[in-house]
Amino acid sequence: LLAVAKVAVDDYVGFTFFVGCMAMMAASAFFFLSMNSFDKKWRTSILVSGLITFIAAVHYWYMRDYWAANVESPTFFRYVDWVLTVPLMCVEFFLILKVAGAKKSLMWRLIFLSVVMLVTGYIGEAVDRENAALWGFFSGAAYFVIVYDIWLGKAKKLAVAAGGSVLSAHKTLCWFVLVGWAIYPLGYMAGTPGWYDGLNGILDMDVIYNIGDAINKIGFGLVIYNLAVQKSDETL
Amino acid sequence: LLAVAKVAVDDYVGFTFFVGCMAMMAASAFFFLSMNSFDKKWRTSILVSGLITFIAAVHYWYMRDYWAANVESPTFFRYVDWVLTVPLMCVEFFLILKVAGAKKSLMWRLIFLSVVMLVTGYIGEAVDRENAALWGFFSGAAYFVIVYDIWLGKAKKLAVAAGGSVLSAHKTLCWFVLVGWAIYPLGYMAGTPGWYDGLNGILDMDVIYNIGDAINKIGFGLVIYNLAVQKSDETL
Ligand SMILES: CC1=C(/C=C/C(C)=C/C=C/C(C)=C/C=O)C(C)(C)CCC1
Ligand SMILES: CC1=C(/C=C/C(C)=C/C=C/C(C)=C/C=O)C(C)(C)CCC1
Repeated sequence: LLAVAKVAVDDYVGFTFFVGCMAMMAASAFFFLSMNSFDKKWRTSILVSGLITFIAAVHYWYMRDYWAANVESPTFFRYVDWVLTVPLMCVEFFLILKVAGAKKSLMWRLIFLSVVMLVTGYIGEAVDRENAALWGFFSGAAYFVIVYDIWLGKAKKLAVAAGGSVLSAHKTLCWFVLVGWAIYPLGYMAGTPGWYDGLNGILDMDVIYNIGDAINKIGFGLVIYNLAVQKSDETL
Repeated sequence: LLAVAKVAVDDYVGFTFFVGCMAMMAASAFFFLSMNSFDKKWRTSILVSGLITFIAAVHYWYMRDYWAANVESPTFFRYVDWVLTVPLMCVEFFLILKVAGAKKSLMWRLIFLSVVMLVTGYIGEAVDRENAALWGFFSGAAYFVIVYDIWLGKAKKLAVAAGGSVLSAHKTLCWFVLVGWAIYPLGYMAGTPGWYDGLNGILDMDVIYNIGDAINKIGFGLVIYNLAVQKSDETL
Protein backbone atom coordinates (compact mmCIF):
# COMPACT_ATOMS: atom_id res chain seq x y z
CA LEU A 1 0.00 0.00 0.00
CA LEU A 2 1.09 3.48 -0.78
CA ALA A 3 1.07 5.94 2.08
CA VAL A 4 -0.88 8.54 0.17
CA ALA A 5 -0.23 11.96 1.65
CA LYS A 6 -2.91 14.58 1.77
CA VAL A 7 -2.59 17.58 -0.46
CA ALA A 8 -3.75 20.72 1.31
CA VAL A 9 -6.49 22.65 -0.47
CA ASP A 10 -4.22 25.68 -0.89
CA ASP A 11 -1.05 23.78 -1.82
CA TYR A 12 -0.94 24.92 -5.43
CA VAL A 13 2.57 23.63 -5.95
CA GLY A 14 1.62 20.14 -4.81
CA PHE A 15 -1.52 20.36 -6.90
CA THR A 16 0.29 21.31 -10.10
CA PHE A 17 2.90 18.60 -9.53
CA PHE A 18 0.17 16.02 -9.20
CA VAL A 19 -1.91 17.12 -12.17
CA GLY A 20 1.26 17.58 -14.20
CA CYS A 21 2.37 14.04 -13.48
CA MET A 22 -0.94 12.53 -14.53
CA ALA A 23 -1.19 14.67 -17.64
CA MET A 24 2.33 13.69 -18.71
CA MET A 25 1.51 10.01 -18.21
CA ALA A 26 -1.63 10.28 -20.28
CA ALA A 27 0.16 12.23 -23.00
CA SER A 28 2.90 9.59 -23.16
CA ALA A 29 0.37 6.81 -23.56
CA PHE A 30 -1.28 8.85 -26.29
CA PHE A 31 1.91 9.44 -28.28
CA PHE A 32 3.33 5.97 -27.83
CA LEU A 33 0.13 4.19 -28.81
CA SER A 34 -0.74 6.40 -31.75
CA MET A 35 2.67 6.43 -33.41
CA ASN A 36 2.09 3.31 -35.46
CA SER A 37 -0.97 4.78 -37.14
CA PHE A 38 1.28 7.12 -39.06
CA ASP A 39 3.49 6.91 -42.04
CA LYS A 40 6.96 5.57 -41.16
CA LYS A 41 8.53 8.94 -41.87
CA TRP A 42 6.64 10.54 -38.99
CA ARG A 43 6.89 7.81 -36.39
CA THR A 44 10.20 8.91 -34.95
CA SER A 45 8.91 12.43 -34.37
CA ILE A 46 5.86 11.16 -32.51
CA LEU A 47 7.98 8.72 -30.57
CA VAL A 48 10.26 11.56 -29.47
CA SER A 49 7.20 13.58 -28.39
CA GLY A 50 6.24 10.60 -26.26
CA LEU A 51 9.74 10.33 -24.81
CA ILE A 52 9.63 13.97 -23.77
CA THR A 53 6.37 13.55 -21.86
CA PHE A 54 7.44 10.17 -20.50
CA ILE A 55 10.69 11.50 -19.08
CA ALA A 56 8.68 14.35 -17.60
CA ALA A 57 6.11 11.96 -16.08
CA VAL A 58 8.82 10.09 -14.21
CA HIS A 59 10.46 13.29 -12.97
CA TYR A 60 7.13 14.72 -11.93
CA TRP A 61 6.48 11.59 -9.92
CA TYR A 62 9.71 12.29 -8.00
CA MET A 63 9.23 16.02 -7.77
CA ARG A 64 5.72 15.62 -6.42
CA ASP A 65 6.90 13.31 -3.65
CA TYR A 66 9.98 15.43 -3.00
CA TRP A 67 7.75 18.44 -2.55
CA ALA A 68 5.32 16.52 -0.31
CA ALA A 69 8.19 15.27 1.87
CA ASN A 70 10.42 18.37 2.05
CA VAL A 71 8.24 21.34 1.00
CA GLU A 72 11.21 22.58 -0.94
CA SER A 73 11.80 23.15 -4.64
CA PRO A 74 13.08 20.01 -6.35
CA THR A 75 15.66 22.02 -8.30
CA PHE A 76 17.90 19.08 -8.97
CA PHE A 77 15.16 16.88 -10.50
CA ARG A 78 13.82 19.83 -12.42
CA TYR A 79 17.08 20.45 -14.20
CA VAL A 80 17.77 16.78 -14.84
CA ASP A 81 14.38 16.66 -16.51
CA TRP A 82 15.09 19.73 -18.62
CA VAL A 83 18.58 18.71 -19.62
CA LEU A 84 17.08 15.56 -21.11
CA THR A 85 13.90 16.96 -22.60
CA VAL A 86 15.01 20.30 -24.03
CA PRO A 87 17.68 18.72 -26.24
CA LEU A 88 15.00 16.27 -27.41
CA MET A 89 12.92 19.26 -28.46
CA CYS A 90 15.88 20.46 -30.50
CA VAL A 91 15.93 17.02 -32.10
CA GLU A 92 12.27 17.54 -33.00
CA PHE A 93 13.12 20.72 -34.87
CA PHE A 94 15.72 18.79 -36.78
CA LEU A 95 13.39 15.87 -37.52
CA ILE A 96 10.65 17.95 -39.05
CA LEU A 97 13.16 19.96 -41.13
CA LYS A 98 14.92 16.85 -42.38
CA VAL A 99 12.56 16.71 -45.36
CA ALA A 100 14.05 20.05 -46.42
CA GLY A 101 17.59 18.73 -46.02
CA ALA A 102 18.46 19.87 -42.49
CA LYS A 103 21.95 18.81 -41.43
CA LYS A 104 22.90 17.22 -38.13
CA SER A 105 25.10 20.23 -37.39
CA LEU A 106 21.97 22.36 -37.01
CA MET A 107 20.69 19.93 -34.42
CA TRP A 108 23.95 19.83 -32.47
CA ARG A 109 24.16 23.59 -32.47
CA LEU A 110 20.70 23.89 -30.94
CA ILE A 111 21.44 21.14 -28.43
CA PHE A 112 24.68 22.83 -27.40
CA LEU A 113 22.95 26.16 -26.91
CA SER A 114 20.16 24.61 -24.87
CA VAL A 115 22.64 22.84 -22.60
CA VAL A 116 24.50 26.12 -22.05
CA MET A 117 21.19 27.78 -21.23
CA LEU A 118 20.29 25.11 -18.68
CA VAL A 119 23.70 24.69 -17.04
CA THR A 120 24.09 28.42 -16.45
CA GLY A 121 20.51 28.52 -15.16
CA TYR A 122 21.24 25.67 -12.74
CA ILE A 123 24.35 27.36 -11.43
CA GLY A 124 22.38 30.53 -10.77
CA GLU A 125 19.49 28.73 -9.13
CA ALA A 126 21.37 26.19 -7.03
CA VAL A 127 25.11 26.76 -6.81
CA ASP A 128 25.87 30.47 -6.89
CA ARG A 129 22.58 32.05 -5.88
CA GLU A 130 24.16 35.38 -4.95
CA ASN A 131 24.88 35.97 -8.60
CA ALA A 132 21.62 34.50 -9.86
CA ALA A 133 20.84 37.59 -11.93
CA LEU A 134 24.17 37.35 -13.73
CA TRP A 135 23.84 33.63 -14.47
CA GLY A 136 20.29 34.27 -15.59
CA PHE A 137 21.66 36.82 -18.01
CA PHE A 138 24.07 34.30 -19.56
CA SER A 139 21.32 31.72 -19.72
CA GLY A 140 19.04 34.26 -21.36
CA ALA A 141 21.73 35.03 -23.93
CA ALA A 142 21.85 31.37 -25.02
CA TYR A 143 18.05 31.32 -25.09
CA PHE A 144 18.13 34.41 -27.28
CA VAL A 145 20.48 32.75 -29.79
CA ILE A 146 18.13 29.75 -30.00
CA VAL A 147 15.21 32.05 -30.67
CA TYR A 148 17.23 33.86 -33.33
CA ASP A 149 18.29 30.62 -35.01
CA ILE A 150 14.84 29.21 -35.39
CA TRP A 151 13.02 32.45 -36.15
CA LEU A 152 15.49 34.05 -38.54
CA GLY A 153 18.50 31.79 -38.98
CA LYS A 154 19.16 28.60 -40.88
CA ALA A 155 16.22 26.66 -39.44
CA LYS A 156 13.86 29.31 -40.74
CA LYS A 157 15.31 29.05 -44.25
CA LEU A 158 14.88 25.30 -44.27
CA ALA A 159 11.30 25.62 -43.09
CA VAL A 160 10.53 28.05 -45.90
CA ALA A 161 12.13 25.67 -48.37
CA ALA A 162 9.93 22.83 -47.10
CA GLY A 163 6.80 24.98 -47.22
CA GLY A 164 3.25 23.74 -46.67
CA SER A 165 2.35 22.10 -43.40
CA VAL A 166 6.01 21.73 -42.37
CA LEU A 167 6.42 25.48 -42.56
CA SER A 168 3.30 26.15 -40.55
CA ALA A 169 4.24 23.56 -37.92
CA HIS A 170 7.69 25.15 -37.70
CA LYS A 171 6.07 28.52 -37.19
CA THR A 172 3.88 27.23 -34.37
CA LEU A 173 6.89 25.64 -32.68
CA CYS A 174 8.75 28.95 -33.03
CA TRP A 175 5.93 30.64 -31.14
CA PHE A 176 6.16 28.00 -28.46
CA VAL A 177 9.85 28.78 -28.02
CA LEU A 178 9.35 32.54 -28.02
CA VAL A 179 6.29 32.73 -25.78
CA GLY A 180 5.99 29.34 -24.07
CA TRP A 181 9.63 29.10 -23.10
CA ALA A 182 9.62 32.70 -21.88
CA ILE A 183 7.52 31.43 -18.98
CA TYR A 184 10.66 29.87 -17.47
CA PRO A 185 12.76 33.01 -16.97
CA LEU A 186 9.70 34.43 -15.19
CA GLY A 187 9.72 31.50 -12.78
CA TYR A 188 13.47 31.90 -12.30
CA MET A 189 13.02 35.54 -11.39
CA ALA A 190 10.28 34.62 -8.92
CA GLY A 191 12.54 32.08 -7.23
CA THR A 192 15.98 33.68 -7.09
CA PRO A 193 17.26 36.91 -5.55
CA GLY A 194 18.10 39.84 -7.87
CA TRP A 195 16.98 43.25 -9.06
CA TYR A 196 13.63 41.67 -9.88
CA ASP A 197 12.81 40.84 -6.25
CA GLY A 198 9.44 42.52 -6.50
CA LEU A 199 8.15 39.37 -8.24
CA ASN A 200 8.89 37.08 -5.30
CA GLY A 201 5.66 37.66 -3.44
CA ILE A 202 3.32 37.57 -6.42
CA LEU A 203 4.39 34.45 -8.23
CA ASP A 204 5.61 31.04 -7.17
CA MET A 205 8.52 29.57 -9.08
CA ASP A 206 7.36 25.96 -9.07
CA VAL A 207 3.81 26.75 -10.10
CA ILE A 208 5.15 28.77 -13.03
CA TYR A 209 7.60 26.05 -14.06
CA ASN A 210 4.84 23.45 -13.87
CA ILE A 211 2.48 25.47 -16.01
CA GLY A 212 5.29 26.09 -18.47
CA ASP A 213 6.09 22.39 -18.68
CA ALA A 214 2.49 21.39 -19.28
CA ILE A 215 2.14 23.90 -22.10
CA ASN A 216 5.48 23.28 -23.71
CA LYS A 217 5.92 19.55 -23.46
CA ILE A 218 2.39 18.48 -24.26
CA GLY A 219 1.65 21.37 -26.62
CA PHE A 220 4.88 20.88 -28.52
CA GLY A 221 4.10 17.20 -28.95
CA LEU A 222 0.59 17.93 -30.16
CA VAL A 223 1.91 20.29 -32.84
CA ILE A 224 4.06 17.44 -34.15
CA TYR A 225 1.14 15.05 -33.89
CA ASN A 226 -1.00 17.46 -35.86
CA LEU A 227 1.66 17.80 -38.54
CA ALA A 228 1.85 14.03 -38.87
CA VAL A 229 -1.94 13.86 -39.22
CA GLN A 230 -1.92 16.45 -41.98
CA LYS A 231 0.99 14.85 -43.81
CA SER A 232 -0.58 11.41 -43.63
CA ASP A 233 -3.83 12.79 -45.03
CA GLU A 234 -1.94 14.28 -47.97
CA THR A 235 -0.44 10.97 -48.94
CA LEU A 236 -3.79 9.21 -48.93
CA LEU B 1 6.61 -7.37 -0.53
CA LEU B 2 3.56 -5.19 -0.69
CA ALA B 3 1.75 -4.71 2.56
CA VAL B 4 -1.73 -5.69 1.45
CA ALA B 5 -4.30 -4.20 3.78
CA LYS B 6 -7.48 -6.04 4.65
CA VAL B 7 -10.74 -4.72 3.35
CA ALA B 8 -13.49 -5.08 5.93
CA VAL B 9 -16.52 -7.05 4.78
CA ASP B 10 -18.76 -4.02 5.19
CA ASP B 11 -16.34 -1.42 3.82
CA TYR B 12 -18.34 -0.71 0.69
CA VAL B 13 -16.29 2.33 -0.17
CA GLY B 14 -13.02 0.39 -0.03
CA PHE B 15 -14.64 -2.42 -1.98
CA THR B 16 -15.85 -0.18 -4.80
CA PHE B 17 -12.48 1.56 -4.98
CA PHE B 18 -10.80 -1.78 -5.37
CA VAL B 19 -13.19 -3.18 -7.96
CA GLY B 20 -13.22 0.15 -9.78
CA CYS B 21 -9.44 0.18 -10.04
CA MET B 22 -9.31 -3.34 -11.47
CA ALA B 23 -12.12 -2.69 -13.90
CA MET B 24 -10.46 0.48 -15.16
CA MET B 25 -7.17 -1.34 -15.64
CA ALA B 26 -8.83 -4.12 -17.58
CA ALA B 27 -10.81 -1.66 -19.69
CA SER B 28 -7.62 0.25 -20.55
CA ALA B 29 -5.88 -2.91 -21.67
CA PHE B 30 -8.94 -3.75 -23.76
CA PHE B 31 -9.10 -0.39 -25.52
CA PHE B 32 -5.36 0.00 -25.99
CA LEU B 33 -4.84 -3.46 -27.37
CA SER B 34 -7.83 -3.49 -29.66
CA MET B 35 -7.33 -0.09 -31.23
CA ASN B 36 -5.10 -1.30 -34.03
CA SER B 37 -7.75 -3.71 -35.25
CA PHE B 38 -9.78 -0.79 -36.50
CA ASP B 39 -9.66 1.51 -39.42
CA LYS B 40 -7.23 4.42 -38.87
CA LYS B 41 -10.13 6.86 -38.68
CA TRP B 42 -11.43 5.24 -35.50
CA ARG B 43 -8.20 4.56 -33.71
CA THR B 44 -7.93 7.93 -32.07
CA SER B 45 -11.41 7.59 -30.59
CA ILE B 46 -10.62 4.19 -29.12
CA LEU B 47 -7.26 5.44 -27.88
CA VAL B 48 -8.99 8.29 -26.09
CA SER B 49 -11.44 5.82 -24.53
CA GLY B 50 -8.42 3.94 -23.24
CA LEU B 51 -6.79 7.09 -21.92
CA ILE B 52 -9.94 7.89 -19.94
CA THR B 53 -9.97 4.52 -18.21
CA PHE B 54 -6.17 4.54 -17.82
CA ILE B 55 -6.16 7.92 -16.09
CA ALA B 56 -8.97 6.63 -13.90
CA ALA B 57 -7.09 3.43 -13.07
CA VAL B 58 -4.12 5.38 -11.75
CA HIS B 59 -6.31 7.69 -9.72
CA TYR B 60 -8.32 4.78 -8.32
CA TRP B 61 -5.09 3.18 -7.21
CA TYR B 62 -4.36 6.33 -5.22
CA MET B 63 -7.89 6.79 -3.97
CA ARG B 64 -8.11 3.21 -2.75
CA ASP B 65 -4.92 3.57 -0.77
CA TYR B 66 -5.88 7.01 0.44
CA TRP B 67 -9.15 5.64 1.70
CA ALA B 68 -7.44 2.68 3.38
CA ALA B 69 -4.92 4.97 5.07
CA ASN B 70 -7.10 7.92 6.07
CA VAL B 71 -10.73 6.65 5.93
CA GLU B 72 -11.62 9.96 4.37
CA SER B 73 -12.96 10.94 0.96
CA PRO B 74 -10.11 11.46 -1.53
CA THR B 75 -11.77 14.61 -2.85
CA PHE B 76 -8.59 16.03 -4.28
CA PHE B 77 -7.72 12.94 -6.35
CA ARG B 78 -11.31 12.56 -7.42
CA TYR B 79 -11.43 15.99 -8.95
CA VAL B 80 -8.01 15.76 -10.58
CA ASP B 81 -9.26 12.59 -12.22
CA TRP B 82 -12.44 14.28 -13.42
CA VAL B 83 -10.76 17.42 -14.62
CA LEU B 84 -8.64 15.28 -16.93
CA THR B 85 -11.20 12.71 -18.01
CA VAL B 86 -14.36 14.75 -18.49
CA PRO B 87 -12.69 17.09 -21.04
CA LEU B 88 -11.48 13.96 -22.82
CA MET B 89 -15.09 12.84 -23.05
CA CYS B 90 -15.88 16.17 -24.70
CA VAL B 91 -13.08 15.39 -27.14
CA GLU B 92 -14.84 12.10 -27.88
CA PHE B 93 -18.01 13.91 -28.85
CA PHE B 94 -15.96 16.04 -31.19
CA LEU B 95 -14.11 13.09 -32.68
CA ILE B 96 -17.20 11.14 -33.62
CA LEU B 97 -18.87 14.25 -35.08
CA LYS B 98 -15.80 15.22 -37.09
CA VAL B 99 -17.09 13.17 -40.03
CA ALA B 100 -20.04 15.57 -40.16
CA GLY B 101 -17.71 18.57 -40.10
CA ALA B 102 -17.63 19.42 -36.38
CA LYS B 103 -15.37 22.37 -35.62
CA LYS B 104 -12.79 22.60 -32.84
CA SER B 105 -14.79 25.47 -31.34
CA LEU B 106 -17.56 23.01 -30.41
CA MET B 107 -15.01 20.91 -28.56
CA TRP B 108 -13.50 23.86 -26.71
CA ARG B 109 -16.94 25.08 -25.71
CA LEU B 110 -17.80 21.72 -24.16
CA ILE B 111 -14.41 21.51 -22.48
CA PHE B 112 -14.81 24.98 -21.02
CA LEU B 113 -18.27 24.18 -19.69
CA SER B 114 -17.09 20.93 -18.14
CA VAL B 115 -14.20 22.67 -16.41
CA VAL B 116 -16.57 25.28 -14.99
CA MET B 117 -18.83 22.48 -13.78
CA LEU B 118 -15.97 20.71 -12.03
CA VAL B 119 -14.19 23.72 -10.55
CA THR B 120 -17.39 25.05 -8.98
CA GLY B 121 -18.15 21.55 -7.72
CA TYR B 122 -14.69 21.28 -6.16
CA ILE B 123 -15.05 24.63 -4.44
CA GLY B 124 -18.35 23.53 -2.94
CA GLU B 125 -17.06 20.16 -1.85
CA ALA B 126 -13.61 21.10 -0.54
CA VAL B 127 -13.08 24.83 -0.15
CA ASP B 128 -16.33 26.53 0.80
CA ARG B 129 -18.49 23.74 2.18
CA GLU B 130 -20.88 26.06 3.98
CA ASN B 131 -22.15 27.21 0.62
CA ALA B 132 -22.04 23.79 -1.01
CA ALA B 133 -25.63 24.05 -2.18
CA LEU B 134 -24.94 27.32 -3.95
CA TRP B 135 -21.78 26.05 -5.67
CA GLY B 136 -23.64 22.91 -6.61
CA PHE B 137 -26.25 25.09 -8.23
CA PHE B 138 -23.65 26.87 -10.39
CA SER B 139 -22.06 23.56 -11.26
CA GLY B 140 -25.46 22.19 -12.18
CA ALA B 141 -26.07 25.18 -14.44
CA ALA B 142 -22.93 24.40 -16.45
CA TYR B 143 -23.97 20.75 -16.56
CA PHE B 144 -27.36 21.82 -17.86
CA VAL B 145 -25.79 23.83 -20.70
CA ILE B 146 -23.73 20.79 -21.71
CA VAL B 147 -26.85 18.64 -21.77
CA TYR B 148 -28.63 21.28 -23.84
CA ASP B 149 -25.74 21.58 -26.32
CA ILE B 150 -25.51 17.91 -27.09
CA TRP B 151 -29.23 17.10 -26.96
CA LEU B 152 -30.61 20.09 -28.82
CA GLY B 153 -27.77 22.40 -29.84
CA LYS B 154 -25.12 22.31 -32.53
CA ALA B 155 -23.77 18.87 -31.67
CA LYS B 156 -27.23 17.43 -32.24
CA LYS B 157 -27.47 19.02 -35.68
CA LEU B 158 -24.12 17.60 -36.69
CA ALA B 159 -25.12 14.16 -35.49
CA VAL B 160 -28.31 14.30 -37.54
CA ALA B 161 -26.28 15.39 -40.56
CA ALA B 162 -23.95 12.42 -40.09
CA GLY B 163 -26.85 10.01 -39.64
CA GLY B 164 -26.56 6.23 -39.45
CA SER B 165 -24.47 4.66 -36.74
CA VAL B 166 -22.85 7.98 -35.82
CA LEU B 167 -26.26 9.41 -35.01
CA SER B 168 -27.24 6.44 -32.92
CA ALA B 169 -23.90 6.44 -31.06
CA HIS B 170 -24.35 10.14 -30.41
CA LYS B 171 -27.80 9.47 -29.04
CA THR B 172 -26.51 6.81 -26.67
CA LEU B 173 -23.76 9.12 -25.45
CA CYS B 174 -26.40 11.82 -24.89
CA TRP B 175 -28.27 9.42 -22.63
CA PHE B 176 -25.07 8.73 -20.74
CA VAL B 177 -24.66 12.43 -20.11
CA LEU B 178 -28.27 12.96 -19.11
CA VAL B 179 -28.75 9.91 -16.91
CA GLY B 180 -25.26 8.57 -16.16
CA TRP B 181 -23.76 11.92 -15.26
CA ALA B 182 -26.79 12.78 -13.12
CA ILE B 183 -25.49 10.20 -10.67
CA TYR B 184 -22.78 12.65 -9.60
CA PRO B 185 -24.95 15.48 -8.28
CA LEU B 186 -26.67 12.77 -6.19
CA GLY B 187 -23.34 11.82 -4.66
CA TYR B 188 -22.54 15.48 -4.09
CA MET B 189 -25.80 15.96 -2.22
CA ALA B 190 -25.07 12.89 -0.09
CA GLY B 191 -21.64 14.23 0.85
CA THR B 192 -22.15 17.94 1.43
CA PRO B 193 -24.39 19.91 3.80
CA GLY B 194 -27.45 21.66 2.35
CA TRP B 195 -31.22 21.60 2.14
CA TYR B 196 -30.91 18.03 0.91
CA ASP B 197 -29.45 16.75 4.20
CA GLY B 198 -31.99 13.97 4.39
CA LEU B 199 -29.91 12.03 1.87
CA ASN B 200 -26.83 11.89 4.08
CA GLY B 201 -27.79 8.79 6.01
CA ILE B 202 -29.14 6.75 3.13
CA LEU B 203 -26.40 7.10 0.53
CA ASP B 204 -22.63 7.31 0.63
CA MET B 205 -20.96 9.85 -1.59
CA ASP B 206 -17.94 7.77 -2.55
CA VAL B 207 -19.92 4.66 -3.35
CA ILE B 208 -22.16 6.71 -5.63
CA TYR B 209 -19.24 8.41 -7.35
CA ASN B 210 -17.54 5.07 -7.88
CA ILE B 211 -20.63 3.52 -9.40
CA GLY B 212 -21.03 6.59 -11.61
CA ASP B 213 -17.45 6.38 -12.80
CA ALA B 214 -17.68 2.71 -13.67
CA ILE B 215 -20.83 3.28 -15.71
CA ASN B 216 -19.71 6.44 -17.41
CA LYS B 217 -16.07 5.83 -18.17
CA ILE B 218 -16.27 2.22 -19.24
CA GLY B 219 -19.74 2.50 -20.76
CA PHE B 220 -18.87 5.60 -22.71
CA GLY B 221 -15.79 3.86 -24.10
CA LEU B 222 -17.78 0.80 -25.09
CA VAL B 223 -20.27 2.91 -27.05
CA ILE B 224 -17.35 4.30 -29.05
CA TYR B 225 -15.93 0.83 -29.46
CA ASN B 226 -19.25 -0.40 -30.74
CA LEU B 227 -19.48 2.45 -33.22
CA ALA B 228 -16.02 1.60 -34.55
CA VAL B 229 -17.04 -2.04 -34.95
CA GLN B 230 -20.14 -1.08 -36.93
CA LYS B 231 -18.28 1.41 -39.08
CA SER B 232 -15.53 -1.07 -39.87
CA ASP B 233 -18.11 -3.66 -40.90
CA GLU B 234 -19.65 -1.16 -43.29
CA THR B 235 -16.41 -0.56 -45.13
CA LEU B 236 -15.69 -4.26 -45.55
C1 LIG C 1 16.18 31.84 -20.25
C2 LIG C 1 16.40 31.33 -18.84
C3 LIG C 1 16.04 30.05 -18.46
C4 LIG C 1 15.34 29.28 -19.47
C5 LIG C 1 14.81 28.06 -19.34
C6 LIG C 1 14.08 27.42 -20.38
C7 LIG C 1 13.77 28.09 -21.66
C8 LIG C 1 13.68 26.16 -20.12
C9 LIG C 1 12.89 25.38 -21.00
C10 LIG C 1 12.43 24.22 -20.60
C11 LIG C 1 11.57 23.42 -21.38
C12 LIG C 1 11.08 23.84 -22.70
C13 LIG C 1 11.18 22.26 -20.83
C14 LIG C 1 10.21 21.44 -21.41
O1 LIG C 1 10.45 20.33 -21.73
C15 LIG C 1 16.35 29.53 -17.06
C16 LIG C 1 17.10 28.21 -17.14
C17 LIG C 1 15.07 29.33 -16.26
C18 LIG C 1 17.26 30.47 -16.28
C19 LIG C 1 16.89 31.90 -16.47
C20 LIG C 1 17.02 32.31 -17.91
C1 LIG D 1 -23.74 18.70 -11.73
C2 LIG D 1 -22.86 18.66 -10.50
C3 LIG D 1 -21.68 17.93 -10.48
C4 LIG D 1 -21.43 17.13 -11.66
C5 LIG D 1 -20.43 16.28 -11.86
C6 LIG D 1 -20.27 15.46 -13.05
C7 LIG D 1 -21.31 15.46 -14.11
C8 LIG D 1 -19.17 14.71 -13.13
C9 LIG D 1 -18.90 13.82 -14.19
C10 LIG D 1 -17.85 13.03 -14.12
C11 LIG D 1 -17.55 12.04 -15.10
C12 LIG D 1 -18.40 11.79 -16.28
C13 LIG D 1 -16.45 11.33 -14.88
C14 LIG D 1 -16.11 10.20 -15.65
O1 LIG D 1 -15.08 10.14 -16.26
C15 LIG D 1 -20.77 17.98 -9.27
C16 LIG D 1 -19.34 18.38 -9.69
C17 LIG D 1 -20.73 16.64 -8.57
C18 LIG D 1 -21.18 19.04 -8.28
C19 LIG D 1 -22.63 19.11 -8.08
C20 LIG D 1 -23.34 19.46 -9.35
